[in-house]
Amino acid sequence: MIGIGVVGYGYWGPNLVRNLIEIPTAQLRWVCDLRTERLAGMRSRYPAVQITEDYEELLRDPKVDAVCIATPVATHFTMAMKALRAGKHVFVEKPIAANARDAERLVEEAERRGLVLAVDHTFIHTGAVRKMRELVGNSLGQLYYYDSVRINLGLFQHDVSVIWDLAVHDLAIMDYLLPERPVAVAATGMSHVPGEPENIAYLTLYFPSRLIAHVHVNWLAPVKVRRTLISGSERMIVYDDLEPSEKVKIYDKGITLTGSPARHGENIRQMLVGYRTGDMTAPQLDTTEALTRELKEFVSCIETGLVPTADGRAGLRVVRILEAATQSVNQRGAVIELQSEKVMA
Amino acid sequence: MIGIGVVGYGYWGPNLVRNLIEIPTAQLRWVCDLRTERLAGMRSRYPAVQITEDYEELLRDPKVDAVCIATPVATHFTMAMKALRAGKHVFVEKPIAANARDAERLVEEAERRGLVLAVDHTFIHTGAVRKMRELVGNSLGQLYYYDSVRINLGLFQHDVSVIWDLAVHDLAIMDYLLPERPVAVAATGMSHVPGEPENIAYLTLYFPSRLIAHVHVNWLAPVKVRRTLISGSERMIVYDDLEPSEKVKIYDKGITLTGSPARHGENIRQMLVGYRTGDMTAPQLDTTEALTRELKEFVSCIETGLVPTADGRAGLRVVRILEAATQSVNQRGAVIELQSEKVMA
Amino acid sequence: MIGIGVVGYGYWGPNLVRNLIEIPTAQLRWVCDLRTERLAGMRSRYPAVQITEDYEELLRDPKVDAVCIATPVATHFTMAMKALRAGKHVFVEKPIAANARDAERLVEEAERRGLVLAVDHTFIHTGAVRKMRELVGNSLGQLYYYDSVRINLGLFQHDVSVIWDLAVHDLAIMDYLLPERPVAVAATGMSHVPGEPENIAYLTLYFPSRLIAHVHVNWLAPVKVRRTLISGSERMIVYDDLEPSEKVKIYDKGITLTGSPARHGENIRQMLVGYRTGDMTAPQLDTTEALTRELKEFVSCIETGLVPTADGRAGLRVVRILEAATQSVNQRGAVIELQSEKVMA
Amino acid sequence: MIGIGVVGYGYWGPNLVRNLIEIPTAQLRWVCDLRTERLAGMRSRYPAVQITEDYEELLRDPKVDAVCIATPVATHFTMAMKALRAGKHVFVEKPIAANARDAERLVEEAERRGLVLAVDHTFIHTGAVRKMRELVGNSLGQLYYYDSVRINLGLFQHDVSVIWDLAVHDLAIMDYLLPERPVAVAATGMSHVPGEPENIAYLTLYFPSRLIAHVHVNWLAPVKVRRTLISGSERMIVYDDLEPSEKVKIYDKGITLTGSPARHGENIRQMLVGYRTGDMTAPQLDTTEALTRELKEFVSCIETGLVPTADGRAGLRVVRILEAATQSVNQRGAVIELQSEKVMA
Repeated sequence: MIGIGVVGYGYWGPNLVRNLIEIPTAQLRWVCDLRTERLAGMRSRYPAVQITEDYEELLRDPKVDAVCIATPVATHFTMAMKALRAGKHVFVEKPIAANARDAERLVEEAERRGLVLAVDHTFIHTGAVRKMRELVGNSLGQLYYYDSVRINLGLFQHDVSVIWDLAVHDLAIMDYLLPERPVAVAATGMSHVPGEPENIAYLTLYFPSRLIAHVHVNWLAPVKVRRTLISGSERMIVYDDLEPSEKVKIYDKGITLTGSPARHGENIRQMLVGYRTGDMTAPQLDTTEALTRELKEFVSCIETGLVPTADGRAGLRVVRILEAATQSVNQRGAVIELQSEKVMA
Repeated sequence: MIGIGVVGYGYWGPNLVRNLIEIPTAQLRWVCDLRTERLAGMRSRYPAVQITEDYEELLRDPKVDAVCIATPVATHFTMAMKALRAGKHVFVEKPIAANARDAERLVEEAERRGLVLAVDHTFIHTGAVRKMRELVGNSLGQLYYYDSVRINLGLFQHDVSVIWDLAVHDLAIMDYLLPERPVAVAATGMSHVPGEPENIAYLTLYFPSRLIAHVHVNWLAPVKVRRTLISGSERMIVYDDLEPSEKVKIYDKGITLTGSPARHGENIRQMLVGYRTGDMTAPQLDTTEALTRELKEFVSCIETGLVPTADGRAGLRVVRILEAATQSVNQRGAVIELQSEKVMA
Repeated sequence: MIGIGVVGYGYWGPNLVRNLIEIPTAQLRWVCDLRTERLAGMRSRYPAVQITEDYEELLRDPKVDAVCIATPVATHFTMAMKALRAGKHVFVEKPIAANARDAERLVEEAERRGLVLAVDHTFIHTGAVRKMRELVGNSLGQLYYYDSVRINLGLFQHDVSVIWDLAVHDLAIMDYLLPERPVAVAATGMSHVPGEPENIAYLTLYFPSRLIAHVHVNWLAPVKVRRTLISGSERMIVYDDLEPSEKVKIYDKGITLTGSPARHGENIRQMLVGYRTGDMTAPQLDTTEALTRELKEFVSCIETGLVPTADGRAGLRVVRILEAATQSVNQRGAVIELQSEKVMA
Repeated sequence: MIGIGVVGYGYWGPNLVRNLIEIPTAQLRWVCDLRTERLAGMRSRYPAVQITEDYEELLRDPKVDAVCIATPVATHFTMAMKALRAGKHVFVEKPIAANARDAERLVEEAERRGLVLAVDHTFIHTGAVRKMRELVGNSLGQLYYYDSVRINLGLFQHDVSVIWDLAVHDLAIMDYLLPERPVAVAATGMSHVPGEPENIAYLTLYFPSRLIAHVHVNWLAPVKVRRTLISGSERMIVYDDLEPSEKVKIYDKGITLTGSPARHGENIRQMLVGYRTGDMTAPQLDTTEALTRELKEFVSCIETGLVPTADGRAGLRVVRILEAATQSVNQRGAVIELQSEKVMA
């Protein structure tokens, strides 16, 4: 039985609690939040769970093996580092930290102590993204591009830009799906409210191969769109997260390079590019709630010592891109090379 | 009665002919194409129109006042310059020329001779774009962004990239719609077929104000999309050219900056950004064929001396951006400043 | 302060409880359900509310002014009649009773005792349906037809057919929206599972005027559809309940009868029917939860003596049509005349 | 080489001509129309084809083997009978005749003379309907229902109701697709323009099995819909003719009857109905123009003596249902039994 404490009971914390309560091998022992009025409902619904305003109290409980952190991004590093130093395994909301240096220090601390450090890249645990993972690197053929649009009339954040708020999802999905790591990023963004962070941004990621990735994120769009195109040499995917059931559509479409250059003379190139089109299939998807899978995996990793799908290093890689993208926006779209993956000693 | 010759009877030429035949104040006198087999159908359908392989023959006819050019892009300059030098008014397919220097020379020649030089920016004559022109600069408020996606599994071109093939439409529309001229462009693109031009590209346009424009063009997409978002401080537009009738949707949505900073203390910014949402309207659009309007306007400009909506200078501005975008792609997305609008003497 | 008891805490009961708790002028005193395990969560969440398995206990409480009934349809009559006889106002789930005779008796009892009898026709309290009510009888012109499709791969019911399960919603909406009452109904249906009630059905309603109404309900459809067309001589409505925000679209479209018969000779009729097409508007809708509005209205009617929007007579009218439709299905679509509205003495 | 004459050069005739010209084994010899101004374009485009106002002249030509009839419905019988009596094979627009008695006489005449009589049920030659034919009777399992909606703001016809204009397509498709023939029909309809035929109608078809078919046709709808649901015990189809490429979607969905009645006691039925859901597939469809296939088949049948897919008897079956549906509308939806298939002697 893994003892668990949750810190942060705002927007996402209740989802963690609801799921942790249902995991047979876990025992939710504490929920901590500074705003005690939020915890009122907790007490009557889950009388066996202790509540506190004092994070240290939670950390002092020797029966707490792991901490799930759902506090604002700016506090992720402090909260997670305290937990690791208290010998607790850590599950932290995305992004794992507010900058790459902090993320590196968390990774180092967890690895040095042999603790599980997981980041909540929720989307990679959905049936849709897991199905796409099966396809990428298999029937899709050589990858050509990843193009995502994630826009709506959304809540303006005041502490982070639309890149840290929305593009983080695409970066997490790409980190999980794609067989290559990006080598550089360029981003442009604009703030339309004076004094606020960017509310619209475009990111381009460069890879070692001819793969190119692009993300459009926007808090100021008249319609909600959550659509990703992933194109390979053999098949193409449209992933529409707003579709109620057919979220992933696989198109048996592509180009074919055919013909003998020698035979076609002047029209050589025109003959070489053909089109191929076949069936479209929307496979049935696992509808298990992503967070359920994710938390079960976290608990299981603590028990077995295995590495979670989205570990601290995945969290770090995503934050490095977010940081580089922000730098690029500030330099009017300059291409920023991404560091290699190693964690500094 | 304006005498007209058409040169180029491939994909677009027949549309020019079909429309010119119906204009009461115009007389289609010649159609010229090197591939005479294409002209066979012409002769029986329009016995009054002369056909020739020899462009010079057409230009020598003193009753030809104007020439409509629908030949490949690489030949636009030569064809148009010959016509201008023969004293003919010119209507030329988009893009007006294959590079900015050639476009400038056409503009200079036409202006020096007092001849009408029009470029076929077809979309700006559609009911949809003309309706949007009424809105932009009026009820839309201050412009925030123009975002366009123009993708499908399309015919690969071998002489021009997807930017020159598809983004040209968005640049023409923006040139017509927007109250500002872009000051810089950045573009990234990728070719997935060795030896071929880019088949996917992303363009970003910078403006003097906070307006930002972005265009995604792609010949290798599993689905066809023709969707543009135009957002202003007061209203937002979704323009979907694939919708059979409701192509333009106007959303009475936006953000509102409210509240008194002094009163809200720490939450000052959180209080200031609110949302406003109202009705959506899809106005009825004029369904006149764009090319019909366009050719009538060209003939009318010859008669009256007025300047066409898309004159040579509009064509030049678009080609300058295409050229700068190509340069940016070759420099991995570097921002390229756009020249001021003046034509060199 | 109106004291209220809720009976039935299965699928819908918790929604009643959640809403009643928030009404300042109501006091939820009791929740009653035979399956006490369902009430476990109730006790901790709402400690001030008493729970019981014994409906009589609830009815004996003199501080209970009104009872909300969310038990299976077959029990509506008994539950409601007991409450009325105990002098309580009643709010009962749709359909108000399992047959017209029982519905009549409830109406009579409530009217004789001067008690409020309301039926939970939820949809008529949505922003979408209330907006349509504003349009019907005004800008829509003379009504031509009401056509509704309400289909999905849905849970088969075992005690009632798809007509009583799904068509009841359309009948309730029509009862609220339309200026006329139907005079006859014809219905066909089919059961594809031996021994089960009909899982697909088509209803046609006849009205005194040329208005015609038709409803397609289906538990065995591959896609979910909730779409109603309402057409008038001046405007037409598409009401799509699955649209996230633009649920009601108003089309300024129709036919026009023009021309002078005398002048057109043989083509007289061909000249008379023309088409008119204008803007489409999707008005902003009130997004208040329907059940919130409905329960507040019920409490207010108890206080003021006013009649609720969906009173017992509305519930009775709907049940009469359901009963006639069932009879028609059993007679292979025979047209069944509907009784006049009077309640038998 | 089969010599062919076309009579009727209005809306559909030009399509016949355009296709016949391209068939290598056919020779289009004549086009006949009373309105000679329509034939003007014909002469210049197809100089080898003779034109006439005199149908008898066409019939007298011994080199004419077959006649294609695209005149108004009211004239189909006379035109076709004359051609048959002149010993010509006949291809006639749908519906084959204006009433069942006339259709029978055409069938009898053609069969007695051993001539090919084909009816232009265009849709059954589309890739979409032919793909569905492969599925019906195979992977779909036992058929449950056919439900079609065919509505738009369409041209009012003055000589025929919306049933004869639009439902004829669904009846032709069903005649081709379904393994059973309907035994009865009921229909309701309404005219909203005084003196005009019905502009909205609903048809229900009864079959020997539990299969049920329903068609909604409407000239007065604010949106265009062309959508058919075909549900079987194993799979379900959505056929949307307005989809540009994915017209046929096959859903691996259905209900499953499971469990042992003996074991479940009271809940016997509740346990027996379960749901099954799997992949959705949109198969690639043959995009050959339907009319091309159809006319080639007609010519081939003349050469080989084979029976066309839609022969005179198919045309007759459809007209019998149209006639019965009209009768039902006039009797306020009364169920009309359909005659057995035999042609009277």
